[in-house]
Amino acid sequence: MALIVQKFGGTSVGSTEKIKAVAQRVIKNHKAGNRMVVVLSAMSGETDRLTGLANDIQRIPNSREMDMLLATGEQVTVALFAMAVKEAGYDAVSLLGDQVAIHTDNMHTKARIDSIDPENISKYLDQNKIVTIAGFQGVADNGDITTLGRGGSDTTAVALAAALQADACEIFTDVEGVYTTDPNVCAQAKKIDYISYDEMLELASLGAKVLDIRSVGLAKRFSVPVHVRSTFSENIGTWVVEEEKIMESMLVSGITYSKKEARITIKKVPDQPGVAAKIFLPISDAGILVDMIIQNTTDGQLTDMTFTVPRNDYQRAMDILQNVAKDIKADSVSGDKDIAKVSIVGVGMRNHTGIASTMFQILAKEGINMMMVSTSEIKVSCIIAEKYTELAVRTLHDAFALDKDNAPIEETE
Amino acid sequence: MALIVQKFGGTSVGSTEKIKAVAQRVIKNHKAGNRMVVVLSAMSGETDRLTGLANDIQRIPNSREMDMLLATGEQVTVALFAMAVKEAGYDAVSLLGDQVAIHTDNMHTKARIDSIDPENISKYLDQNKIVTIAGFQGVADNGDITTLGRGGSDTTAVALAAALQADACEIFTDVEGVYTTDPNVCAQAKKIDYISYDEMLELASLGAKVLDIRSVGLAKRFSVPVHVRSTFSENIGTWVVEEEKIMESMLVSGITYSKKEARITIKKVPDQPGVAAKIFLPISDAGILVDMIIQNTTDGQLTDMTFTVPRNDYQRAMDILQNVAKDIKADSVSGDKDIAKVSIVGVGMRNHTGIASTMFQILAKEGINMMMVSTSEIKVSCIIAEKYTELAVRTLHDAFALDKDNAPIEETE
Repeated sequence: MALIVQKFGGTSVGSTEKIKAVAQRVIKNHKAGNRMVVVLSAMSGETDRLTGLANDIQRIPNSREMDMLLATGEQVTVALFAMAVKEAGYDAVSLLGDQVAIHTDNMHTKARIDSIDPENISKYLDQNKIVTIAGFQGVADNGDITTLGRGGSDTTAVALAAALQADACEIFTDVEGVYTTDPNVCAQAKKIDYISYDEMLELASLGAKVLDIRSVGLAKRFSVPVHVRSTFSENIGTWVVEEEKIMESMLVSGITYSKKEARITIKKVPDQPGVAAKIFLPISDAGILVDMIIQNTTDGQLTDMTFTVPRNDYQRAMDILQNVAKDIKADSVSGDKDIAKVSIVGVGMRNHTGIASTMFQILAKEGINMMMVSTSEIKVSCIIAEKYTELAVRTLHDAFALDKDNAPIEETE
Repeated sequence: MALIVQKFGGTSVGSTEKIKAVAQRVIKNHKAGNRMVVVLSAMSGETDRLTGLANDIQRIPNSREMDMLLATGEQVTVALFAMAVKEAGYDAVSLLGDQVAIHTDNMHTKARIDSIDPENISKYLDQNKIVTIAGFQGVADNGDITTLGRGGSDTTAVALAAALQADACEIFTDVEGVYTTDPNVCAQAKKIDYISYDEMLELASLGAKVLDIRSVGLAKRFSVPVHVRSTFSENIGTWVVEEEKIMESMLVSGITYSKKEARITIKKVPDQPGVAAKIFLPISDAGILVDMIIQNTTDGQLTDMTFTVPRNDYQRAMDILQNVAKDIKADSVSGDKDIAKVSIVGVGMRNHTGIASTMFQILAKEGINMMMVSTSEIKVSCIIAEKYTELAVRTLHDAFALDKDNAPIEETE
């Protein structure tokens, strides 16, 4: 008899009909002898409706009251779900964050879970009830309702699975699982059967659509096996598990891209101690996150500094840097918004050299110029011209044979 | 510095604009130096929307989950209200039933309040905050959310006023207060300035529209001064207070009527011990409430039994009684749905005889026949033909001079 935590998002419970369908699915698992804990989000559209009301009233809605307001969304869903289970002839009980209790800090609208009491849930499970729990919410020490921020229901589900020592945490979504790359860009994109926590973290830009990155970190910390799968089919999805549990790691597991960055270069910066701080302090003071940084020595005492910022912050960063450039007596500031970051991710890289150079060769063969490169233990990222994004993704996907089962490519070095 | 509990119903908070207006009104009282506690209902239409969702899912929605569902309505309102106060530059905090805490029994959808902890509210009031509390809801011993049933927000307000030893409990509504009779029937109907708890209880059919009868009982028990007044004006409404606090009681305070009853007569019932039980047991077993009962001896061993039942239950009662009549060998069963109950209410009756006979004379002068009469210490009720209802109300209102200030009529006996 397994204990399974299942999480269904807003579109999966977007109508009373859909809630009934989810109930049927959960009941099937219950009838198979499993102890079922079901985490639900607000019905799709509800959070927007509530946020609209708040914005009508307060320009910047108070965060404590915003949590009070938004928490009702999940409360409605769990009550309706419990009714649906009962109408189908089985027993269910709904619990809110403070009824579980899911203890959090008091950082309203982005609270972090401190601990979860498993007793209440276990008591109801022992009574053969399906237990449904409002996602996204918790309770602070002073009894205030808190919410967990973006992707909060995923976090609730994984944290509950950890606290209950569940056998699995299943995250239901509108796709079949995590793919080797974006199927909209590469028709050969293939569902990944098993992926490690670390790879999943690096695959953020793929994973964010199906699994909130914060919940992956939590799953890794507590070794919770997470199963990302479709609400609309019975197919096995993607298991996110410990690296050791994956029999044969792929050299490259997935390819991601991002068109949300811009590149800025400051030319001929006098190469003196403290000059980097003079450049990046005003940027970080403005709340702008710098991602990749490259410094090229051009001649003698002068150097070029190149880095990426979020595309939304591009103009602000340029304005700041025009002043900085004058101040540090640099030659000029130039930038480029039409760039993309393409990355390959795979734990297999840890034990294999030359993956980066393979990537460079593949891109070069297509005539795609790399403007910047950065690497981590299990990831290589390249900045290229935006117009080559799809070509790069497809070419890399093909070259690393991601459409093949268990077929790590030959090293080309 | 007075402590005032104010309660606003669903229509008073039916839109974000209306919530802002209520906030302004409360802030005005706050600025005048009062400690303000504000009980709010769900926005008008919201409870119906949620009930509709529940009915979509479960034929008879589970009562625990129904409470979980419906409690969100008030939660939304208090969060928005607190935002509105803050946007206006003042401080507010919202609290739910379990955060106060308002302890109830576990009778879901119709829970009764056991006790209220005043500490949390007092703490926030001491911080100069306006405290807004979700009406209609409480928490059971096991942590389940409960709701108080019909008129629950009025009950919440009065119970809070009692627990906090508030100086006043103000119930805001869409009329100016409690009237001497229905203004739609009698243009001379006049707002009552002061009325006792007992009179208010008897004036149920008038009061139910503006003040839930259960909250009147609670107010009486804890001597909470209740002020029923309009959301849309600054006028003084009706104060519901202890009888001793009303300087000069009116002989008659108000006139009520009800067209929701029907009359049934069983003719020539053999007058034997136990025959009444044979008639009324099957009726009560069917869940039908009998109101007035009259027994007339007609001749020797035979008697006529007449009584009233809710009009909705008339046909069922008739069907049952046809069988009963055969069984007890009564002559026949007849009935009349076209009746009305007209009542005069006033604590002044306690010390004055002859009010009932005055009423009879007034009705007789208009040629209105009384079919049945029942009296309590402060009420006289007559059953008359329905078509005379408005005439009776207007004539009594005029004869007892209810349109005049402090003018108890002369006794006519």
